[in-house]
This record gives sequence, C-alpha cells and structure tokens, in this order.
Amino acid sequence: MTDFSETSDVSSSDDWCNTAIDDAQARANPRVAQAVERITELRQSIDNVDAAIVSLLAERFKYTAEVGKLKAQAGFAPEDREREQRQAARLNEVAVNAGLDPSVEEHYLQFVVTEVKRRHQCIARAGAKSGC
Amino acid sequence: MTDFSETSDVSSSDDWCNTAIDDAQARANPRVAQAVERITELRQSIDNVDAAIVSLLAERFKYTAEVGKLKAQAGFAPEDREREQRQAARLNEVAVNAGLDPSVEEHYLQFVVTEVKRRHQCIARAGAKSGC
Repeated sequence: MTDFSETSDVSSSDDWCNTAIDDAQARANPRVAQAVERITELRQSIDNVDAAIVSLLAERFKYTAEVGKLKAQAGFAPEDREREQRQAARLNEVAVNAGLDPSVEEHYLQFVVTEVKRRHQCIARAGAKSGC
Repeated sequence: MTDFSETSDVSSSDDWCNTAIDDAQARANPRVAQAVERITELRQSIDNVDAAIVSLLAERFKYTAEVGKLKAQAGFAPEDREREQRQAARLNEVAVNAGLDPSVEEHYLQFVVTEVKRRHQCIARAGAKSGC
C-alpha cells in the first residue's frame, strides 16, 4: 500500500485535512486520486456486504417472528438465557476465526437479541396475530 | 400453523407459561413437542444466518480498516455525511424490498457506522500503523 505519510505534498496540505472526499480536488494530485479510486472500490464492496447483511437480517427476523408466535402459542417465555449463552459462545468462535474483533460481534448479537425479545414480548402480550 | 390458543390443555397449563423451552416437559404433549421441533429447526437457521452475518461483518471491517488507513494517509476526514446519507437511502430500499422493518436496518447501519467512525478517528489520531 502507498504510504502517503512520506509524501509531503499530500500530508502537509491543509486542503485535504478534515475534509470529506472531493473528486474534483482529488484529481489534482495523482497519489490522492489513486487513494480515492481505491476508497471508491472498497465502498462498493462495503455496500455489497451491507446489502447482503440487510437481506440476511430480513430472513433472520422472519425466522424469529415465527419462533415468537410458536412460543406465545405454546406459552413459552420470550426470553431464554441458556439459548443466549450458547449463541454468544458460538458466535464468539465464528468472530475469532473470521478475524473480527469480538466486541463488534457482541454488539451485533446484543442488538438483534434485544430487538427480537422486544418483539417476542409484544407477541406474548398482544397475541400471535398481532403486528409485532 | 397450529393455533395453540385453541388447545386448552396447552394454553391453560401454568407449567408452560413464562418458562424457557424444556425438552423433557415438551415430550409430554405432542402439540408442544411439534412446536419445540419447529423452534429447534428455526434456531438452526437463525444460527446459520448469524454465522453468515458475523463472517460478512469480518469482511466489512477489513474493508473499512483499509478505507480508514487511506483516509488518514491522504488527510481525509473520518466522517463523510454525504456518503452516510447515500448509504442510508440505499439500505432503506434494500430493507423494504427484503421485507425487513426499516428500523432494524437503521439500527444496523447506525451500529456499524458509529463503530467504523470510532476506528477511523483512532487511526487518524494514532497513525495508519496503529492497532485501531
């Protein structure tokens, strides 16, 4: 990777500091233009990953909506701490193996579990045919 | 889907209310056993989706780590509000088309963008070779 810190005409330029990426300005400097090009490529990959994750979240919430209805109908509690502990241990292993900071995976799991429990509690209170 | 609310021997049983799923108890009632079986299947799918999402998050954070380094080297700001607005609009469309409650997608985007910005700020302060 190019080390811009060795390129005084880039790192010493106040024009670039604390600004968002500006294509017009970027074209004036070939090294910065190269960085902008790579950032644009990476952003496309990030957008593709986000679209995939949001699509998977849609499937995940369809599954958990069905679990919520089945639990409410059978009278099971919305919360299941043992299940949550198994999920946490398993996902931690997936994160470590995939090279992801486990704190990010923990935050992800906390976010989905909190959201799902809120919906399951709503289903349990309002009935399986509610709009939870 | 079986409607357990019509099954008095299930819905009237205090044993099931507010309890986590218990396989031993579940086997005593065929209808509940069927629900437990379906919940087990759904949980396996949920676990598969979670593993896929965590693996994708690992890739996402590799991409954003590279973006962070390039931005720091070129002197670009860690934050880019226009980019964030475009991401939000695009992902909202993905969520709606996939049948996901947009509030879940918004929560997801907020979580990753906040985490990435924190890391980019760390890289900008500590240098591209930091452990951010």
